[in-house]
Amino acid sequence: MTSAPEAPGTGLLAPGWAGSPAADATDDRAWLRALLDAESALTRAQAGLGLAPAEAASAVTEAADPARFDVRSLAERARDGGNPVIPLVADLTKAVGEEYGPYVHRGATSQDVLDTATMLVAARTLDLLLPELGRTERALAALAAGHRDTAMPGRTLTQHAVPTTFGLKAAGWRTLVLDARDRITAVRDALPAQLGGAAGTLAAFGAYGAADPTVLSAAYARELGLRAPELPWHTLRTPVADLAGCLAFAAGALGKIAADVLTLSRTEIGEVAEGSGGGSSAMPHKANPVRSTLIAAAARRAPQLAATLYGSLAAGDERPAGAWHAEWEPLRDLLRLTGGAARDAAELTEGLRVRPDAMRAHLGLTHGLIVSERLSAELAPVLGRARARALLAELAERTFAEDRTLGELLADVPELSGLDLDALTDPARYTGSAGALTDRALERR
Amino acid sequence: MTSAPEAPGTGLLAPGWAGSPAADATDDRAWLRALLDAESALTRAQAGLGLAPAEAASAVTEAADPARFDVRSLAERARDGGNPVIPLVADLTKAVGEEYGPYVHRGATSQDVLDTATMLVAARTLDLLLPELGRTERALAALAAGHRDTAMPGRTLTQHAVPTTFGLKAAGWRTLVLDARDRITAVRDALPAQLGGAAGTLAAFGAYGAADPTVLSAAYARELGLRAPELPWHTLRTPVADLAGCLAFAAGALGKIAADVLTLSRTEIGEVAEGSGGGSSAMPHKANPVRSTLIAAAARRAPQLAATLYGSLAAGDERPAGAWHAEWEPLRDLLRLTGGAARDAAELTEGLRVRPDAMRAHLGLTHGLIVSERLSAELAPVLGRARARALLAELAERTFAEDRTLGELLADVPELSGLDLDALTDPARYTGSAGALTDRALERR
Amino acid sequence: MTSAPEAPGTGLLAPGWAGSPAADATDDRAWLRALLDAESALTRAQAGLGLAPAEAASAVTEAADPARFDVRSLAERARDGGNPVIPLVADLTKAVGEEYGPYVHRGATSQDVLDTATMLVAARTLDLLLPELGRTERALAALAAGHRDTAMPGRTLTQHAVPTTFGLKAAGWRTLVLDARDRITAVRDALPAQLGGAAGTLAAFGAYGAADPTVLSAAYARELGLRAPELPWHTLRTPVADLAGCLAFAAGALGKIAADVLTLSRTEIGEVAEGSGGGSSAMPHKANPVRSTLIAAAARRAPQLAATLYGSLAAGDERPAGAWHAEWEPLRDLLRLTGGAARDAAELTEGLRVRPDAMRAHLGLTHGLIVSERLSAELAPVLGRARARALLAELAERTFAEDRTLGELLADVPELSGLDLDALTDPARYTGSAGALTDRALERR
Amino acid sequence: MTSAPEAPGTGLLAPGWAGSPAADATDDRAWLRALLDAESALTRAQAGLGLAPAEAASAVTEAADPARFDVRSLAERARDGGNPVIPLVADLTKAVGEEYGPYVHRGATSQDVLDTATMLVAARTLDLLLPELGRTERALAALAAGHRDTAMPGRTLTQHAVPTTFGLKAAGWRTLVLDARDRITAVRDALPAQLGGAAGTLAAFGAYGAADPTVLSAAYARELGLRAPELPWHTLRTPVADLAGCLAFAAGALGKIAADVLTLSRTEIGEVAEGSGGGSSAMPHKANPVRSTLIAAAARRAPQLAATLYGSLAAGDERPAGAWHAEWEPLRDLLRLTGGAARDAAELTEGLRVRPDAMRAHLGLTHGLIVSERLSAELAPVLGRARARALLAELAERTFAEDRTLGELLADVPELSGLDLDALTDPARYTGSAGALTDRALERR
Repeated sequence: MTSAPEAPGTGLLAPGWAGSPAADATDDRAWLRALLDAESALTRAQAGLGLAPAEAASAVTEAADPARFDVRSLAERARDGGNPVIPLVADLTKAVGEEYGPYVHRGATSQDVLDTATMLVAARTLDLLLPELGRTERALAALAAGHRDTAMPGRTLTQHAVPTTFGLKAAGWRTLVLDARDRITAVRDALPAQLGGAAGTLAAFGAYGAADPTVLSAAYARELGLRAPELPWHTLRTPVADLAGCLAFAAGALGKIAADVLTLSRTEIGEVAEGSGGGSSAMPHKANPVRSTLIAAAARRAPQLAATLYGSLAAGDERPAGAWHAEWEPLRDLLRLTGGAARDAAELTEGLRVRPDAMRAHLGLTHGLIVSERLSAELAPVLGRARARALLAELAERTFAEDRTLGELLADVPELSGLDLDALTDPARYTGSAGALTDRALERR
Repeated sequence: MTSAPEAPGTGLLAPGWAGSPAADATDDRAWLRALLDAESALTRAQAGLGLAPAEAASAVTEAADPARFDVRSLAERARDGGNPVIPLVADLTKAVGEEYGPYVHRGATSQDVLDTATMLVAARTLDLLLPELGRTERALAALAAGHRDTAMPGRTLTQHAVPTTFGLKAAGWRTLVLDARDRITAVRDALPAQLGGAAGTLAAFGAYGAADPTVLSAAYARELGLRAPELPWHTLRTPVADLAGCLAFAAGALGKIAADVLTLSRTEIGEVAEGSGGGSSAMPHKANPVRSTLIAAAARRAPQLAATLYGSLAAGDERPAGAWHAEWEPLRDLLRLTGGAARDAAELTEGLRVRPDAMRAHLGLTHGLIVSERLSAELAPVLGRARARALLAELAERTFAEDRTLGELLADVPELSGLDLDALTDPARYTGSAGALTDRALERR
Repeated sequence: MTSAPEAPGTGLLAPGWAGSPAADATDDRAWLRALLDAESALTRAQAGLGLAPAEAASAVTEAADPARFDVRSLAERARDGGNPVIPLVADLTKAVGEEYGPYVHRGATSQDVLDTATMLVAARTLDLLLPELGRTERALAALAAGHRDTAMPGRTLTQHAVPTTFGLKAAGWRTLVLDARDRITAVRDALPAQLGGAAGTLAAFGAYGAADPTVLSAAYARELGLRAPELPWHTLRTPVADLAGCLAFAAGALGKIAADVLTLSRTEIGEVAEGSGGGSSAMPHKANPVRSTLIAAAARRAPQLAATLYGSLAAGDERPAGAWHAEWEPLRDLLRLTGGAARDAAELTEGLRVRPDAMRAHLGLTHGLIVSERLSAELAPVLGRARARALLAELAERTFAEDRTLGELLADVPELSGLDLDALTDPARYTGSAGALTDRALERR
Repeated sequence: MTSAPEAPGTGLLAPGWAGSPAADATDDRAWLRALLDAESALTRAQAGLGLAPAEAASAVTEAADPARFDVRSLAERARDGGNPVIPLVADLTKAVGEEYGPYVHRGATSQDVLDTATMLVAARTLDLLLPELGRTERALAALAAGHRDTAMPGRTLTQHAVPTTFGLKAAGWRTLVLDARDRITAVRDALPAQLGGAAGTLAAFGAYGAADPTVLSAAYARELGLRAPELPWHTLRTPVADLAGCLAFAAGALGKIAADVLTLSRTEIGEVAEGSGGGSSAMPHKANPVRSTLIAAAARRAPQLAATLYGSLAAGDERPAGAWHAEWEPLRDLLRLTGGAARDAAELTEGLRVRPDAMRAHLGLTHGLIVSERLSAELAPVLGRARARALLAELAERTFAEDRTLGELLADVPELSGLDLDALTDPARYTGSAGALTDRALERR
């Protein structure tokens, strides 16, 4: 796939996917190629079953060269009938020539070819996207293992709650990436070819001589490396809805990572930083978390794109007047947005700089109150529940008023002299099962 | 689950789910019950591991009786802290009494209990919804088998294309229902309990004595009949996103059936009718397709509800300030909307009246042009491709001008005397592989 | 705006907007031109206030020629900083040369230029779209006036209810188009320029010598024909949300027309037909309602695109990390989808063929029951309410059983001999205030 | 509106709106009351025009007492015909009694009453919501005026950019609130009654004696305090779409405030705090920003609810089978979510605690680089542009390496001895036009 100057879809408004593998795999030229692949596979499948001469298969396959077609002209002529396959078949038939032209698209309907091409594009894009998820999960596995015991504040509703570890956070991110990978892999492996003819009965293939057109359908799918469909799915849109679901999931999963990185790299927090932040000429101190920003933008858009696709499940008749046409651009958008986000996530996680010292420093911001939950539990047996609670409430106020830590104040309480207050008030020693959970999560492959 | 007068959520604006099993299974009382189930399961699990006295488990379990709690008061007090678990724990602790009150909610965070309750409600609702899908697919299997060879017009972009069969249409509907069933079943079986403590590290359980809190997490899940989570998923929202996906899928799948029934039951078409259409006092002839209407309404709403849930995947920190709270009502809405639609779909498909005579009559509306595709294929060998195409175009015009059928006009063409024109122009004999596809689809269980 | 071969965005998957005025007005080259217009306007405004030499203004204006910039290269370099203005400023500065280069983009931030360019693109696209709505409303006014008294079945929940007129239907469509026009016009006239500098305080303009930078802001807006903003709106996204609302409205309004045309042009109904339906080579009888189909597809997508834009209102800080970036492509999509739909609506309504005979024929499909509402009202004074109702219920059954019309059956009822049953049972004489309402609606300009 | 124990919709999952004025104004009882108000207004309007006896109007008005109706029963019976008006009319007719019962709902269709009731509920809810926006804008005006010159870091893409003021931030928030107020007010004032009869022609009113039914429509609207519709709008859904737009706008506008407060109240930032944060028993230091959290949750949901409503613009026929029914719950949800968010916003802004000292301290976090933009501008005339840039880049690195401020380092540069470096490097003196912009914004009423 070359980036020829005439290639469509430059992506000026789309730094999230422009220039990514998914961009090339989903642009108009990629779709043109897939449409032509579908057409030639159909003729070859028919030839393989004796329904067309072998020469026809060769002629169509040879003529189905994307370079010979004018995408812009096809796009404009698509308007008449409402889809690009109609002008494409006209051009391809002409290119094949008089003798074998009649074998082009024989028995098929436009939707057979466009749906099949869409599945091809999806498969090819997912095959590029999955390795990016692989890079991402490996980078996260390394971060999780390397920071298994790096304590940091756990934050809930924007406030410090109790300590956690960066290892557990990274392990959680990775779990989401693996969930995304598994959902995408399952959907990708099930992507079917489409073959049904005008109304999904395969009737024309019979009229052209096929004893059992479902055999043709299977042969066609085999030619393309797609699954043979159980039924023609012109208005049974499971494959499209499944793509919507797994892609929205993946975008959201990566969006979780981005959301956390954006927070943790705030000027006041600075616990992580993107490897190569976007610069600003006038403000040399700014290192913007650009990768996270673009992933976050994708995560904001993906759910609504998926909603449009889920909405097209309610497709009327044997081919709907609108629901089908409404799928094309949103599905492409989802593929390239998520593909671009996967690229950004790989770069983000591979380059992420972690600052354990900042994390450690922040654990002290609440003067030790970040471990008050632990002290509630540990002091109750010593002081009684009511007294423990009252004491902690009192010290919580005093700690800020007197600018002393909770540990210092507790040391003044005689009844507690038997406790190892250093240990009990050390946030880094109150990370619970974070390490064990990280280990367990990393066992998943 | 009684329909007591004080039960919340009467559903005046929701004929699609009011009074359905899913309505009761998802109302505020059902959530209250699930919240209490989660609390008592936690204490029992702790008791089972020796972390709490057996008497505490009994006391909490006994006190956790929904009838003893005031839903409205809980709802209003939920405002202070932003979730209903905070006041619930206060009330439950008081109900348990001084001795065992301290064991209520011990070590847990609000989100542990609310997320777990949500999974319980989801599981219980899906367990009611799946049988409705079962009824629907069985009704559709019977329709598909019974109408395997009932020819009808296939319609694309609102126009008659080529014939199909009602059997194939019903088989396709059923395939979508089975796809929905399979997706829901997979998600339902994976619904996890939630247990993480304040920031997902399980630390407090350790502080209260658990040697390995992940063992507690597993025991808690077992008490509830839910899956033990790999990690606390406070901000790893795979279970919620998966519910969003399978429910939006199911609503859309049923929406496809509704869309078709709405078209086919139009006054001018009348090929099917709902078993008991909604009446109108002023217009006795009206038998409105109400079940389909309500399913169609659900299918319009579900994708956007799912979008909100997918959007919450990008949940910041260890508990997000908003993304979590934004899930609660949309997930409930999706469960009851889809549950209600499943009830309506079962009634719709079980009661559907099919009118093969109307289908047959409509096959003649295009004066035989509905089989022009076949004639293109069959006449070409006899007349040559160009002559066949020209003849058909000419006759297509004449058939309406002269009000004669294509078959009649073709009978005047001497070169075609060797063809069985009756057979070739009979729409009912041009249904292609519809029967075979139906048979194959019905093999799926 | 030429359609040069290298122009981006060929629209192969978008027959709804490919080749439309809105397509050219919103493609990457159009955005590039608007970005350059914003940059040169800024320098000119500064020169006008004595903040830059007049020669700088000339130099920047001359250099800001879209033909001199490489869109694809800009798109790819946009990735580093997350927006295309950063590389554009670099290229423009270089093109302007050493002497006046420092005056390029002086004091501005990327968002000033990108937001302003977006408003320019929106204004230019809406200026092309509004005339299409004008064509549409004029065509509909003619249809409404011409068919003021053309009776047809009114349909509710897919069933014939009582008669209406095609004039009223067309007048209603026009009212929606006028509502869309009014909403778009109001938003278009309020589109503001953006100028705030790095964090919206205009501080850098002061540093470069402006006594009152808000004067510069107004001059800049004047140069561009945009409104001067009350405040910099980097994260006060009213203009974008307003565009979302009016465009989603317009797409939905046109979608209503399309929905009705799709139904009314069904093979079984045929009360209207698109002027030039899309053909099918294998099925010469098919005249697909392609314009309506493509409008319907746009109407399915627009709400979710608008949702993403409304979602970006919650934009954090002085420039958000994602919410802003998530706006760009959806806003473009909304502009060109709605622009394309407006083109299709103009063609659809100008070419619509109306078949009063089919409408008339369908008024008889219910054997006269379509006026049963009227008879309920008119017979009650004669027969008493209970007897009238019982009679109508009985006759409603008999009319289908005996294949006689309601009028014929009523003529057998002696008590009704004093009524003008021909008039009372003539659907064309039971159109209520349809004519008066049509007249009234047509008075709106 | 009492909160009787049997009142529906307790809101256990909705701390964002439970217990708010909008909750009561939109619950099932409120809708019941509005439905009854519509019914009785219709009879009164008819009586006023001599189309019904005055006694009928009195009887219906008296019978239309919400306390006499069983909401739950209505909800369940709504299923048969698909809307709650059908059983309501039956119950109301019975309650009115034999003599005047026939005047109930006379000539109307269910949608007339349900749409009118919806407009009443919307008007009543907006009349409660607008004062909350008023409270909010007044609180924000006070904050903006009081902190007109309180400098704080301006943040872009999460990083400190240049200084701004809290006054400008609050003024910007207020501008959004005023924008929301203006949009809601305009929509509220245009809310129309609905009256069209079975298919929108007003025919039945003529059959019952009205000389000009449009006069009845106007009288009916007057009775209800709603606008008289230009046309029946059963499938011309401008009022619903307009509500969707203004409510999504308002939720998003408040969401912007919430997003900023959530960031600024983070433990590490602490520049603002909610007046009464939500507490946590186990973690006494936690003061969660609960009001902002709940507003943020509403802002996440509103766009998708609006999308469903915009999607219903494409409503087929004279009453659509699904699009109408899909509006009811989402519109209610939007009203109460936004109403609840407005309540929270009023409390949030009235109670917001601002910490200028924290803001001031953070201005120093970048060691003075936060004013590097200014220095770029000011040093260039002294040092030349290239030298100024190189110097700043060098010092930017040194400032962190040597832990000295930019001002200190600049003081070492001899060429700069003539500059007032104290002033130039004081962030609080680089707030540009923030004060002037704040003043201007506050002039808006």
